[in-house]
Amino acid sequence: MIPQNVIITNRLEDTINDFFQSVSYSNTAVLVDENTLKYCYPKIKRLLPPHSIIEIPAGEIYKNIETCSRIWQHITDLQFDRNALIINLGGGVIGDMGGFCASTYKRGIDFINIPTTLLAQVDAAVGGKLGIDFNGFKNHIGLFKDPEKVIIDPEFLQTLSKRELRSGFAEVIKHSLIADKIYWPNISDNAFDQQDWKAHIAHSVQVKAKIVSEDFKEKGLRKILNFGHTIGHAIESYFLGKPNYLLHGEAIAAGMICELYLSAEKCFLPEEQVATARKFILNMFDFVEIEEKSIPQIARLASQDKKNESNKILCTLLSEIGTSEFDIQISQQDIIDALWYYKKLKVNQI
Amino acid sequence: MIPQNVIITNRLEDTINDFFQSVSYSNTAVLVDENTLKYCYPKIKRLLPPHSIIEIPAGEIYKNIETCSRIWQHITDLQFDRNALIINLGGGVIGDMGGFCASTYKRGIDFINIPTTLLAQVDAAVGGKLGIDFNGFKNHIGLFKDPEKVIIDPEFLQTLSKRELRSGFAEVIKHSLIADKIYWPNISDNAFDQQDWKAHIAHSVQVKAKIVSEDFKEKGLRKILNFGHTIGHAIESYFLGKPNYLLHGEAIAAGMICELYLSAEKCFLPEEQVATARKFILNMFDFVEIEEKSIPQIARLASQDKKNESNKILCTLLSEIGTSEFDIQISQQDIIDALWYYKKLKVNQI
Repeated sequence: MIPQNVIITNRLEDTINDFFQSVSYSNTAVLVDENTLKYCYPKIKRLLPPHSIIEIPAGEIYKNIETCSRIWQHITDLQFDRNALIINLGGGVIGDMGGFCASTYKRGIDFINIPTTLLAQVDAAVGGKLGIDFNGFKNHIGLFKDPEKVIIDPEFLQTLSKRELRSGFAEVIKHSLIADKIYWPNISDNAFDQQDWKAHIAHSVQVKAKIVSEDFKEKGLRKILNFGHTIGHAIESYFLGKPNYLLHGEAIAAGMICELYLSAEKCFLPEEQVATARKFILNMFDFVEIEEKSIPQIARLASQDKKNESNKILCTLLSEIGTSEFDIQISQQDIIDALWYYKKLKVNQI
Repeated sequence: MIPQNVIITNRLEDTINDFFQSVSYSNTAVLVDENTLKYCYPKIKRLLPPHSIIEIPAGEIYKNIETCSRIWQHITDLQFDRNALIINLGGGVIGDMGGFCASTYKRGIDFINIPTTLLAQVDAAVGGKLGIDFNGFKNHIGLFKDPEKVIIDPEFLQTLSKRELRSGFAEVIKHSLIADKIYWPNISDNAFDQQDWKAHIAHSVQVKAKIVSEDFKEKGLRKILNFGHTIGHAIESYFLGKPNYLLHGEAIAAGMICELYLSAEKCFLPEEQVATARKFILNMFDFVEIEEKSIPQIARLASQDKKNESNKILCTLLSEIGTSEFDIQISQQDIIDALWYYKKLKVNQI
């Protein structure tokens, strides 16, 4: 089931028109970065009521409290009242940060998301997680709130580089690995250029929505969505701001391989399933070069993960492809071992 | 009815013990300022499980995003996980800002409030409004969330200066003016030193809780709690950071007098009731010196009030003592007139 506030559409114009016929806002702003301003905004510009544009610089490094202050100041200057609307047009950074700013401005105004990256369409669009990074910690400050509407048009994928598209693909892979063995061949049997993105988007939204509907605030089941993220987020944080920075999905792809290894160790994921998933991921993604000296640092970053409790590192692992278990306790040493496992794959060439 | 999460107690020790017997947190911090650290913390120190202290500077001017960043950094350094607890020990600034930081740290951890000022006990303790000021706008950034528990001990009032106590009294007066004609003589028949604070706290909590329970997110009825605040907040903002800054209640007292004037103009509040309430408030509070040139500035600040919609200034006014009406539209000129009315009271010496 696609959640009520999510629309996957090929007819963007009708969808946006319908929305604005059913509501009335005192003021509207579109939050964009330089890329979505150039490539995506022209597709929706004439469909919107009179509005302002708020442009922020593209990139995860700007997903911070300083950028929030700029956004808050901008809508204050525009004299936005509580009946105003923010339209987040962009990827995960725009949606997460724009949603956070909207939800805290005058204690909360409405926002809608029009995700333009595959990553945002298959992941950030559903689940109501909003927020920003804080001093190197990913999504450290934020809250849970659903957008009024999420409008997903796969046409926007044509504005993406192959690297961006691949980044979103990591979450598509994850959704199948954690919860849908049946769907897995639809992904793993195809080369990158043959993937059916529209089908994948619908599948991912359904998988995620089902999990989130059972556990919105991530007290239990929802944690399975973090497969690949305990180590993947730490890898992403480590490379944040460096010249060889990683896109989210690139880090998560490496994180999933590390956690496939741990899944075999801790949850008896059969070795041939580890190999199948690992080979597919390595095939799809560039190998991440992790220097030996950075391994303990990445392991330390992972111990600050939000899902941890009482200084225990808690992880989601697979018992088989399509079946996952959450709150599996692992040690810093386990993370170090997993990172070494990944690092050595280069030499071994799988 | 006192809300379920609020406890008014003379037995602080038992109340705190009971709370910590029923819950278990991975980590606990007490948020204080230099005053509550010195005068209030010693009263609860030995009742708490092992904990850290987070000290921030006292005063409304520190209720901003920079202080939030300090608090977030501090609990990050303490490796707080999602099962940690923040105890806000102090007045409205501590409760509002500590609650906001807790509610956004890792998308939300628990917090309890132990309000130590009369203002916080009768007002901030109930209703779940959290937040901070932003570039001169009061409570501009924030959200709605109830604390796990609010523990109110009137004993803490003994730590307050007379000026602080009087500041809280403004909200006590307001609760009666907007919603309880019957209770009004319990306030207006007594000199300041004869006020029954414990009774007033219980009364205020009940009045506010009843209103909030019917309209948590302030879509309608809850707006009556803003009587005196449309102009009062603007006066407070105007003096913020100046040497002759005002405490919240001092500004609200002046704001209520301005809005009593507008109540007669717009809602036919009988002149003798205006006079009764005005005289009582002028008797209790120092007169606020408002320079002529600041009047248009204060009027402009009032037009940025969160309760406004579509550039209309919306105000709560009284039709009689104990009965209020919300969403009454007023103009900038009305605010200017009301401020002049107030200013001239000094000369007239009523």
